[in-house]
Amino acid sequence: MAKELTSRAEDYSQWYNDLVIKGGLADYSAVRGCMVIKPYGFALWENMRDQLDKMFKDTGHVNAYFPLLIPKSFLSKEAAHVEGFAKECAVVTHYRLMNDPDGNGIVVDPDAKLEEELIIRPTSETIIWSTYRDWIQSYRDLPLLINQWANVVRWEMRTRLFLRTTEFLWQEGHTAHATKEEAIEEAERMLGVYADFVEGYMAVPVIKGVKTANERFAGAVETYCIEAMMQDGKALQAGTSHFLGQNFAKAFDVKFSDKNNTLDYVWATSWGVTTRLIGALIMVHSDDQGLIIPPKIAPMQVVIVPIYKGEDSKAPIDAKANEMVSQLKALGVRVKYDNNDNSRPGWKFAEYELKGVPVRIAMGLRDMENKVVEVARRDTKEKNSMSMDGLAENIVKLLDEIHQNLYNKALAFRNENIKEANNWDEFVKLLDDKGGFISAHWDGTAGTEEKIKDKTKATIRCIPLNNKQESGKCILTGEPSVQRVLFARAY
Amino acid sequence: MAKELTSRAEDYSQWYNDLVIKGGLADYSAVRGCMVIKPYGFALWENMRDQLDKMFKDTGHVNAYFPLLIPKSFLSKEAAHVEGFAKECAVVTHYRLMNDPDGNGIVVDPDAKLEEELIIRPTSETIIWSTYRDWIQSYRDLPLLINQWANVVRWEMRTRLFLRTTEFLWQEGHTAHATKEEAIEEAERMLGVYADFVEGYMAVPVIKGVKTANERFAGAVETYCIEAMMQDGKALQAGTSHFLGQNFAKAFDVKFSDKNNTLDYVWATSWGVTTRLIGALIMVHSDDQGLIIPPKIAPMQVVIVPIYKGEDSKAPIDAKANEMVSQLKALGVRVKYDNNDNSRPGWKFAEYELKGVPVRIAMGLRDMENKVVEVARRDTKEKNSMSMDGLAENIVKLLDEIHQNLYNKALAFRNENIKEANNWDEFVKLLDDKGGFISAHWDGTAGTEEKIKDKTKATIRCIPLNNKQESGKCILTGEPSVQRVLFARAY
Repeated sequence: MAKELTSRAEDYSQWYNDLVIKGGLADYSAVRGCMVIKPYGFALWENMRDQLDKMFKDTGHVNAYFPLLIPKSFLSKEAAHVEGFAKECAVVTHYRLMNDPDGNGIVVDPDAKLEEELIIRPTSETIIWSTYRDWIQSYRDLPLLINQWANVVRWEMRTRLFLRTTEFLWQEGHTAHATKEEAIEEAERMLGVYADFVEGYMAVPVIKGVKTANERFAGAVETYCIEAMMQDGKALQAGTSHFLGQNFAKAFDVKFSDKNNTLDYVWATSWGVTTRLIGALIMVHSDDQGLIIPPKIAPMQVVIVPIYKGEDSKAPIDAKANEMVSQLKALGVRVKYDNNDNSRPGWKFAEYELKGVPVRIAMGLRDMENKVVEVARRDTKEKNSMSMDGLAENIVKLLDEIHQNLYNKALAFRNENIKEANNWDEFVKLLDDKGGFISAHWDGTAGTEEKIKDKTKATIRCIPLNNKQESGKCILTGEPSVQRVLFARAY
Repeated sequence: MAKELTSRAEDYSQWYNDLVIKGGLADYSAVRGCMVIKPYGFALWENMRDQLDKMFKDTGHVNAYFPLLIPKSFLSKEAAHVEGFAKECAVVTHYRLMNDPDGNGIVVDPDAKLEEELIIRPTSETIIWSTYRDWIQSYRDLPLLINQWANVVRWEMRTRLFLRTTEFLWQEGHTAHATKEEAIEEAERMLGVYADFVEGYMAVPVIKGVKTANERFAGAVETYCIEAMMQDGKALQAGTSHFLGQNFAKAFDVKFSDKNNTLDYVWATSWGVTTRLIGALIMVHSDDQGLIIPPKIAPMQVVIVPIYKGEDSKAPIDAKANEMVSQLKALGVRVKYDNNDNSRPGWKFAEYELKGVPVRIAMGLRDMENKVVEVARRDTKEKNSMSMDGLAENIVKLLDEIHQNLYNKALAFRNENIKEANNWDEFVKLLDDKGGFISAHWDGTAGTEEKIKDKTKATIRCIPLNNKQESGKCILTGEPSVQRVLFARAY
């Protein structure tokens, strides 16, 4: 297309950036590592957020809001947590600026130094559990099922739009339970909600699993995850759900009395997905012509472009198009009629193709006479003539079909890219050749996992849930193994 | 009530805090000046946000997201802006913590000092206009009508839950226009949207006006505002909309070429409302028994409490109540059926009174036989027997009636509390006696306004839109004046 997009074959990474920026989803900002989410990208995030929010509420959760700033000392209270997060914190040390006495603009006022530094939340376990101490006394206060939509900051050295940014948007669920079993059940339930959302709305197939100890969230007893496969053969962690045991309850002294008045620490979970899901969505579905946005979360599901010469033919086309818009909207379809005179149909076609609008309808005077429109699918690029009779209903069906096609295509690709490796050479060859998930035996030690990572940059993405037990030998050490795990290079 | 609420007469300020905390809206946090918005308070904010968001979108605006962190130097680019905001900024100076070499927990890593400090946004004009420079080239790119929902931080010395917190939630609209007239029209349109929302959904009457130069937003040419009257006779600014002229366009060099290819600076507006609106809502409507939440934004509009003795009578009441719940939900009513066995009806009545649920329905076995329920209004505390036939429809009507009654009551109170003062003694007496808005002549100078503020703590809340022109003498200086303005002590 005339959009000057880099192709995937040419430079995958540049192709991704081109799609994000030229597709109008996001842009770099003046602040290192932070992005601006542009209106089109934010509308996509709103659709994702609203659907997730509904699913959280349907499973009994409520939203709340906790402070952005966390006292530095809170981070130290959970030993593993501080190791995981202290390295990448934005630290607030002062609360005032002043005019430079030497006349050079404004400077930090040295008299306005905080007694204790504050951290911009990289995640909120610590501030939330310090609050739960006041909210939980008895089993009657449990379970506490709270979610928060928020911005967080992690000082990343290498950043990429959506995939890894210093500031990002996310939701973080933080729940408190009376029993271990109930907390584990919650962590697994929310993993299921994530998988249902990512597969059912983003059309991205995922593998559910648990992380190895090395890859676990800092402070978790068990980290559940969903992993997706990108078109370049790299994996992407699409969401995590953590069973935190009693670690944070102990760190913040949160106890409850049960029905027998016995005191015990509370059991916890936390779970989150972020704006990086948008990165996954782009890399799973899109092509060299631009974005392909799955219909259920697309800001525009349908765009109607009029084809006319001169003002005379415009009025009747406008009238008919507006009628179609009303019919589509009545069925809940997000539709735009673009009769902007400033650009020609060909330019608009390319623009909406770049933006990944699932269905494009074109209509000229002759089409109107024949009571048909031309319908183009973004996913397959097929064009068909469709009758105006029952058009809205047929478009709704088509949107479902597009969702299903995107999912099936991504699933087939993902499945083709799960390969077994039975020794080190096979493993390395597969990795360097096609990438993908490599199912291989591992001796179960953190040391071996580290060595494999150092040698190949591949990590254990997960041990799939309900994994087949099968004895074998570790691809690196030859030590005995009881099951295969999934390795991949990952975003 | 058994809730041990402080009464308004006893201690208005403590009454307010009691309502916020015991009513479950918010709580203090471990971080100075920051609050935790609890689930009930956040559900209220979500309803307010969703309605406002709809009104913004209906007037052509789209949402986007800009970085939380702003380079320090950006603040200096607009001279008035830096004066207004530099004094109260949270400043990020470092990006890493480390283990204290002396073993005392964690400390800031001195090697991780930022080259340029970053400010947590107190408002986003600077970062947004630095971005608009890249987005705007031609008149075709205008108008740009963008809103952002975000958290902001202003380092306040004295904080109060919702009314003035270090971190708060808000929305900020930032628009760019080709002409001065269009920008002014936009600023006025959004003031209208705010007034429609606050009156139409929060049942809080407001006066629309403009601020004097002293009270203007730092960087604005004109600040429009809506002002409300609290029960203690103090005013509260409920929203502002600024015409920014070309100040930020000049500061960030944002020019566009018009149809004749002439370059000019872009015209701007910004406008915002915050979580402090929740404070206004509490202080306008609530009473000594607790919160009174206006129906249109109430998280729970109706609560149904069963009255029964023993399990035998519970089952049929549950069945009937669940039927009522379905009927009410079908009409879009937010209803909760509280058949929790752990607490008695009397306790529940007090609890929902405290939480300000607009309508409470009580139903026992005898009511069921008579096909009636007892309906209690939170606003008037009236109780009436209502037939089960057509109950849902009648409840919907009742909710509208409650909204109207709350608005009328607040309007009558507000109007009673606008008094004219024609000389200094009258002015001071009115202020110290009943407070309220005082309509008085002022000589139009910033100096006089300052003196009046120093002597009485009263400020000019606004010059009402379409203000009557009437010659008189300034209450302080006796100098000539062309109109009365509204003074008040304010939150």
